[in-house]
Amino acid sequence: MGSPVHRVSMGDTWSRQVNPDIERERCKQSFDVERLTHILDRGAQNTALRRKIESIIHSDPEFSLKDIYFMSQNERYENAIRKKVHLQMIAQHLGWSEEGPELAYANRALGGDVGLNLHAVFLKALRSLGSDEQIAKWGVLCKEYQIIATYAQTELGHGTYLQGLETEATYDAATREFVMHSPTLTATKWWPGDLGRTATHALVLAQLICSGARRGMHAFIVPIRSLQDHTPLPGITVGDIGPKMGLEHTDNGFLQLDHVRVPRENMLSRFAEVLPDGTYIMLGTAQSNYLSMVVMRVGMLLTIVLPLLQKACVIAMRYSVIRRQSRLQPSEPEAKILDYQTQQQKLFPQLAMAYAFHFQAVSFLEFFQGSYNAILHGDFSLLPELHALSAGLKAMVSDSCTQGAELCRRACGGHGFSKLSGLPSLVTDVTASCTYEGENMVLYLQMARFLVNNYLQAQKSPGSTSQRSLPQSVAYLAAPVLARCPAQKAADFLRPELYTAAWAHTAARLIKDSAHRLQTLRRSGADWQEAWNCTTVLHAQAAKAHCYYIIVKSFTHALEELENEPAIQQALKRLCDLYTLHSILTNAGDFLHDGFLSGAQADMARTAYLDLLPLIRKDAILLTDAFDFTDQCLNSALGCYDGNAYERLFEWAQRTPSNTQANPAYEKYIRPLLQSWKAKL
Amino acid sequence: MGSPVHRVSMGDTWSRQVNPDIERERCKQSFDVERLTHILDRGAQNTALRRKIESIIHSDPEFSLKDIYFMSQNERYENAIRKKVHLQMIAQHLGWSEEGPELAYANRALGGDVGLNLHAVFLKALRSLGSDEQIAKWGVLCKEYQIIATYAQTELGHGTYLQGLETEATYDAATREFVMHSPTLTATKWWPGDLGRTATHALVLAQLICSGARRGMHAFIVPIRSLQDHTPLPGITVGDIGPKMGLEHTDNGFLQLDHVRVPRENMLSRFAEVLPDGTYIMLGTAQSNYLSMVVMRVGMLLTIVLPLLQKACVIAMRYSVIRRQSRLQPSEPEAKILDYQTQQQKLFPQLAMAYAFHFQAVSFLEFFQGSYNAILHGDFSLLPELHALSAGLKAMVSDSCTQGAELCRRACGGHGFSKLSGLPSLVTDVTASCTYEGENMVLYLQMARFLVNNYLQAQKSPGSTSQRSLPQSVAYLAAPVLARCPAQKAADFLRPELYTAAWAHTAARLIKDSAHRLQTLRRSGADWQEAWNCTTVLHAQAAKAHCYYIIVKSFTHALEELENEPAIQQALKRLCDLYTLHSILTNAGDFLHDGFLSGAQADMARTAYLDLLPLIRKDAILLTDAFDFTDQCLNSALGCYDGNAYERLFEWAQRTPSNTQANPAYEKYIRPLLQSWKAKL
Repeated sequence: MGSPVHRVSMGDTWSRQVNPDIERERCKQSFDVERLTHILDRGAQNTALRRKIESIIHSDPEFSLKDIYFMSQNERYENAIRKKVHLQMIAQHLGWSEEGPELAYANRALGGDVGLNLHAVFLKALRSLGSDEQIAKWGVLCKEYQIIATYAQTELGHGTYLQGLETEATYDAATREFVMHSPTLTATKWWPGDLGRTATHALVLAQLICSGARRGMHAFIVPIRSLQDHTPLPGITVGDIGPKMGLEHTDNGFLQLDHVRVPRENMLSRFAEVLPDGTYIMLGTAQSNYLSMVVMRVGMLLTIVLPLLQKACVIAMRYSVIRRQSRLQPSEPEAKILDYQTQQQKLFPQLAMAYAFHFQAVSFLEFFQGSYNAILHGDFSLLPELHALSAGLKAMVSDSCTQGAELCRRACGGHGFSKLSGLPSLVTDVTASCTYEGENMVLYLQMARFLVNNYLQAQKSPGSTSQRSLPQSVAYLAAPVLARCPAQKAADFLRPELYTAAWAHTAARLIKDSAHRLQTLRRSGADWQEAWNCTTVLHAQAAKAHCYYIIVKSFTHALEELENEPAIQQALKRLCDLYTLHSILTNAGDFLHDGFLSGAQADMARTAYLDLLPLIRKDAILLTDAFDFTDQCLNSALGCYDGNAYERLFEWAQRTPSNTQANPAYEKYIRPLLQSWKAKL
Repeated sequence: MGSPVHRVSMGDTWSRQVNPDIERERCKQSFDVERLTHILDRGAQNTALRRKIESIIHSDPEFSLKDIYFMSQNERYENAIRKKVHLQMIAQHLGWSEEGPELAYANRALGGDVGLNLHAVFLKALRSLGSDEQIAKWGVLCKEYQIIATYAQTELGHGTYLQGLETEATYDAATREFVMHSPTLTATKWWPGDLGRTATHALVLAQLICSGARRGMHAFIVPIRSLQDHTPLPGITVGDIGPKMGLEHTDNGFLQLDHVRVPRENMLSRFAEVLPDGTYIMLGTAQSNYLSMVVMRVGMLLTIVLPLLQKACVIAMRYSVIRRQSRLQPSEPEAKILDYQTQQQKLFPQLAMAYAFHFQAVSFLEFFQGSYNAILHGDFSLLPELHALSAGLKAMVSDSCTQGAELCRRACGGHGFSKLSGLPSLVTDVTASCTYEGENMVLYLQMARFLVNNYLQAQKSPGSTSQRSLPQSVAYLAAPVLARCPAQKAADFLRPELYTAAWAHTAARLIKDSAHRLQTLRRSGADWQEAWNCTTVLHAQAAKAHCYYIIVKSFTHALEELENEPAIQQALKRLCDLYTLHSILTNAGDFLHDGFLSGAQADMARTAYLDLLPLIRKDAILLTDAFDFTDQCLNSALGCYDGNAYERLFEWAQRTPSNTQANPAYEKYIRPLLQSWKAKL
């Protein structure tokens, strides 16, 4: 199954022959790549199912991604809708359920290039915020595509700060309806996917006003387009927000509501309800309506954000073993660029990060599933921790994946600037994730607030009691910490307990420092908001350090569970070491600052780090092969399994419209220009 | 002249009224913005000329940038060619010369969105490498557009490492011709602008072979398309390389040569010549043919790279004073996002960098002009320093401007992802500069080699002699350095001599460490290439530190010359302080490592840094206004002078083709999908 035949794209004459430069990379395998793929898939049976789905998708010409890079925004949109409708037919025919693994694998195979993605977001929000009755009613309408739904939260003038949303839902007890209204230009809903040209219904987040009182943000199902002819319904102004840096297949849209009436039953009411007479009843906490955002943040990491970085790593790594440049030895041919220390330094930390985030996301998903169920059943005790972790980790993962994918792209030189490499669209898509589902700086600060609160809590009640009362992810704030790093030689920095403790120390110190600075300002007379604002740079830094600690811890924990797979464990441990040492060295100032590390120890850490590069070099192609992306899914002229990058780049370029169409600029402008000098004779 | 009327785009009803949130920013001016604009323009007369040119360009509807974001790649290309031809007519009519300031200002006003840009690159290369006769002959043909020329260096399989280029030019003494040939697929010229669909001639960089000997890279003028009908000439295969991440208006192309013959006179021969009988004569040094790359690297900084960062700063800053989000005080309206410390921390270092690079580029240009003239006249003594500086600074400036522009883009949240903000195209264009004219890592290492050589040189001959013999930019390597930073309080970190010395110390230490590590490996038996490769991560770090030192030094020097402008001097000094402190803090590990800074001193530096933010806050809009970009040139819905971002974003979105054209996907796919459930009833 894991053979080249499985992965290589068919139909190209050169693809029968693998580039010898990449073939040699796969000759000696220090571990079983197929087994690692099973681990990443969380079970061999998942790998088998995924490949089965991929072969269904890739053998169907309707799903070809071939000419995608030549399409206009309108063509991309139409193409994505076409594929989604076709996919839906297949899903129905084969009995794939909306939440089942088959559709998830199909989406992976299609690289997300299908329409109606917000339909699933609507369903998630419905299930988080709707009553059982509402879930039953609207869930069926959605699943059967009797309606096409989207999720409309962000406004032209308002983003991550939900309290600032201006859209109003005023309850009219006389008719038992909500009057949905956009009072200003800035209240225009802006950005929702599928809204521009497609959706028939929107879940509109709006300020509830009932019996004259403002009750904060709630969610309302609003029909926006006619189910008969798709025209906007009365009071609805809707359209596309125009060209974007990426996500061209999606019709992100705008929506203005002019006193649009919806029945009382259209407010999602798992956590709050408006009775017919206008009485407001709260069933959850004030934060409950934020739950759907938590769900989306958790869901996006493994399925949307991380694969973009992984693919970028695959492409850049494969290109780096067939690209040759300059000489390492005067007598030898030009060297593979991956043999240069600087190229390893560019790519290996990104690869290590892709693995680190994978294991982190899997472990976080387990925590999420437990706490989410509890919340749906009314136990909100884990919500603050879940909220803080989902916020901080979303920020950290999306920021880092964006930076990592861009580094991979740039590591391919000029070819990484060609859309045909596949890298530009990976980068622009992952960049978007830094902003959607919450702007990252705001999210870091949400995590920081949780950290400061818990730190102060731990200070109030010292000793063993406090530790027990702290949420698990911050328990280390009450534990005794090392004041000095005990490392005495470079090899000591390859001990997981040592580097995990190093991050625990530094994260705890930064959280402590930011909390103290906040308290100092408070004591000197600043009010809370002012003091907080003047310390946010420190808080954000502390939140990032906490994320590093969490991620390093979960990676080392995942390694421990691989004791029966020593070869894989060894290969991954090097990545874990590299990830951590890279994170320590790029934040070296934070470790040297209080003398936790000495300059000599920092040098040891750097030696350990640099010494890892050639070890990882040997496994580099195997470690990216293990992600098991098909050529069709990568859709990259540079990154195919067979390593025939130049042949493919040249052939794909021939298909560009500039080469297949005449050049009207010649007759119109170039020819007259070239002949204008004659006129002067 | 510097009035709003000058800058505001005309014709929009709302633009008569400036957004009060941005208007208030301009009420109190701590310095004369107009005067600062003159300084940036290097003279009030330049500002006046620039504005005159801008008003010619902007009042001409042929040059409108209005619908550019809605165009396909083919449309962008045709549009750019149309504008270039029109511009050429105007230039001829008004007597603007090819090298004069008028065309440079016109290009600035057009944001580079014109075709035939490689024509000027060809001319620069011609002037650097051609004999006086060749310059006379081809220069006229170019200026009159009897031919359209491009510069063809990079190949499909070869980039920055010029010795690896495969294209061959074999001299045939019998016919006194060069036979130009691409022996392999990877020898295909790849990337040259204007090559894909436009140029009639290319300056082809190729390996010269004469009398059986390989003589290295030389430049040859090769006709590629018919001057009669524009079809490719015999032996020429030429086309477009396809869709890219940016630079869509340019037809980057490929070129294959199949034994194409050009006369002996077509080899540029300022520094080397082939006599009719095939005798090879070298007139310059082996490095002479690299001179044209040096010229281009210097030229691109001020005219191409830096304005992209400056515009990104303008847009993000203006948006950040009209965007309001969340509350700093519960009783107040939502706060301007620029009042948040985290937003200041995102944007102000980019603004400071934009100024730092401006003054650095101006000072480097002066050095270049002197040394370039000497080289053209056969004095090569300054070439190594010029080459090293042009390489390292190109890498540093393009890397940092890319990172800075992207930070500005992301600081605008979701709206920064919309092409209508203008930010995505700024980012993708500046990103390209990290790769073209030399891949940045390769360039850092070219500078590093110069640094190591000079360091070892300084070691060999200690004392005052060595210092005199060292090139000016590295003289500090022989000067005595401070072992400990003398700062005792935060305010000490606002002293230019202190922080310049701090960077001198750290750059010198890193250069020393990397040289020593190299020597240690050599002594332990590694050959030079191996030892170099194993220390390149350190060398690159040292080169960056050297760049910081050079930039900080030239910024402080520029400030000294502003003693007659105390208000401007004060405003700019804060930026200089901020730039330097930001660079020290983001590299804090390098300063703490050897105890040059203590942890307490790092805290002082951070305090000084954070305290600068609110001071710069007051001048932020004025400091971006001073760049004096017109609204038309910014072409941004978010960043116009009047601050009416939401109105403009909404209006521009209405013009998108998705909103003005019907949606064919509805009848084809959406309607059948929505009605498919009925079939099952």
